[in-house]
Amino acid sequence: MHYFDHAATHPLSEVARAAWLDAATRFPANPSSLHRLGARADRALEGARARLAAMLGCSPGEVIFTSGATESNNLMVHHLAHALTGTVLVSSLEHPSVLEPTRHELAERRQLIPATPAGVVDLPWLENRLRTRPPAAVLLMAANNETGVLQPWREVAARCREHGVWFGCDAAQWLGKLPAAGLGACAFLTGCAHKFGGPPGVGFLKGPTTLRPLLRGGPQEDRRRAGTQNLPGILAMVASLEARERELAVGGAEQRIVWRDRFVARVQQALPGTELLGADAPRLWNTVSLQLPPRADGRRWVVALDRLGFAVASGSACSSGRDVPSHVLEAMGRSRDNADRVVRFSSGWETPESAWEVLIRKGVSS
Amino acid sequence: MHYFDHAATHPLSEVARAAWLDAATRFPANPSSLHRLGARADRALEGARARLAAMLGCSPGEVIFTSGATESNNLMVHHLAHALTGTVLVSSLEHPSVLEPTRHELAERRQLIPATPAGVVDLPWLENRLRTRPPAAVLLMAANNETGVLQPWREVAARCREHGVWFGCDAAQWLGKLPAAGLGACAFLTGCAHKFGGPPGVGFLKGPTTLRPLLRGGPQEDRRRAGTQNLPGILAMVASLEARERELAVGGAEQRIVWRDRFVARVQQALPGTELLGADAPRLWNTVSLQLPPRADGRRWVVALDRLGFAVASGSACSSGRDVPSHVLEAMGRSRDNADRVVRFSSGWETPESAWEVLIRKGVSS
Repeated sequence: MHYFDHAATHPLSEVARAAWLDAATRFPANPSSLHRLGARADRALEGARARLAAMLGCSPGEVIFTSGATESNNLMVHHLAHALTGTVLVSSLEHPSVLEPTRHELAERRQLIPATPAGVVDLPWLENRLRTRPPAAVLLMAANNETGVLQPWREVAARCREHGVWFGCDAAQWLGKLPAAGLGACAFLTGCAHKFGGPPGVGFLKGPTTLRPLLRGGPQEDRRRAGTQNLPGILAMVASLEARERELAVGGAEQRIVWRDRFVARVQQALPGTELLGADAPRLWNTVSLQLPPRADGRRWVVALDRLGFAVASGSACSSGRDVPSHVLEAMGRSRDNADRVVRFSSGWETPESAWEVLIRKGVSS
Repeated sequence: MHYFDHAATHPLSEVARAAWLDAATRFPANPSSLHRLGARADRALEGARARLAAMLGCSPGEVIFTSGATESNNLMVHHLAHALTGTVLVSSLEHPSVLEPTRHELAERRQLIPATPAGVVDLPWLENRLRTRPPAAVLLMAANNETGVLQPWREVAARCREHGVWFGCDAAQWLGKLPAAGLGACAFLTGCAHKFGGPPGVGFLKGPTTLRPLLRGGPQEDRRRAGTQNLPGILAMVASLEARERELAVGGAEQRIVWRDRFVARVQQALPGTELLGADAPRLWNTVSLQLPPRADGRRWVVALDRLGFAVASGSACSSGRDVPSHVLEAMGRSRDNADRVVRFSSGWETPESAWEVLIRKGVSS
């Protein structure tokens, strides 16, 4: 099976596997325990926090560990809903784990930020809104999970700072694909391990020390998130991100953009009428979202490719399982009728160009 | 280091380690993905749900997977607070992950159930209350984390059923030490993996299909808990519990109660004035909570034992890190002044009797 669904989940990296096993062996105790074994686990935990904070560019005390991006996003929204009054502007391109809790917890206090047909948040609209009627907070993801389109989070973070507005950024798809540096300047930042080779079930939130907890109980995570920490998962997450950051620093993203674009051009050549979503915007090197022409055999593309041995997605994994037309396509002003012809191909750092070639030869144009 | 802090966290079992590694290799995809690799992961997930439900004695559709007992308890309380009106009776012996969310979410609607000096919930008080002024719900743990004292959850569950009252049971300390069978009859049941050799960061909740989600986003866990499932953690949890259930079925708990009681008797002989907490109640075979006499050298017991190579706790790990006098001791009517002389020793299934002997010879009576 050729795996082109890294945006849904990234298989466990060797670095993460080794770190997880090492932690499970070396740190058998609870980091909250008073004895030496507990203190040793606690030092490893705080070391991981400092290492993650260093990559993001923030203070370790601002980082708490969670069970994943969904929990982190819910926690961020929970805090905003209770700590602030006034409107929260939420990008219409956000992941369900931001859209659902904001809809539920903010209700009328939530206003959606429109997107352009290119799949980018409407920056002029947002800048105008910040000038004329500043909201309490703005939420915008760093890179979209369905199209890979990069969002202007740096610009929005800067504008928000100017206007004294809280800014929260879901960086789940950005981390591990583009450098983490600078993300820590966002007031709130969320991410999870399993999108970049760490294990599922672990993530983080960077936020204020006054954060209102969503999970209450013991005093772990500086009273901002109760529950025994998932130390092997945390160490595996941090090790996996560090390894990827080193690879990104050496370079290679540009090369992968060439492979990505060559793949798109060849598909468009083989299948006239193919449309690239977000063609007019900068995109992640690993994600290609294509609206393909209808198949002659009437089959759905995702199913046909699966039979040919290619694992691809029809949208985000969360909604594809239920076959709900994508809210992202709708925000881009596209018809929902063609949603089942939209296919997301997402590679990993280790995916060679030859795999993209096999995907064209034996999959898309077969 | 001799580890007598299994109640805080149990080191990863071999069975759990193998299951985790196997899952991370065999199921690299997201269970929500539509392709074959996703479907394969989903089958493993649903298989784990059915296996856990079979052990508990409930329907697989009633079980959802979470990040641990703290999340499960918060989710249970969140549901009760919003789905019910009226009073919720909460045992005063509960873990902080039940006490804190009930205090916060229920406020005046929470009433604490008193405990006896033996560390058991006051059953006559509760039965009278159920007869005269039935509450909306009752929350009682299966076994106490600080003393190991077993609670009459079967009786309370039956009384609650008679009176049409919801019953929720935190079984985090019971599972893996006593058979799981029958626990699934509780309306709500919570537990986590790392108390019986599974990895940290994974747990479950058995509850109604109408459960109100605490984490919102994707439709995972039948829309009751959003977020990509921690499949390796879930499979490791279930495998670890199954292995322990098999060991429990063969027997061995009675033998371990003999070792436990022999240890207590020898400590009381060596250190006159030693008091066994919950002496008059049935207790877990692995947990001994002793109020020891003051040390001649003025040192705290936990610190002294740590230097001698024994990892023990002064209370639950959650509160001991902060050295907060235990609410359990208070509920048992004990003075908080002696709290720092209370030491919890908690063994594992693999702890041999010789380890208890070393603990006496080189630790407690040295």
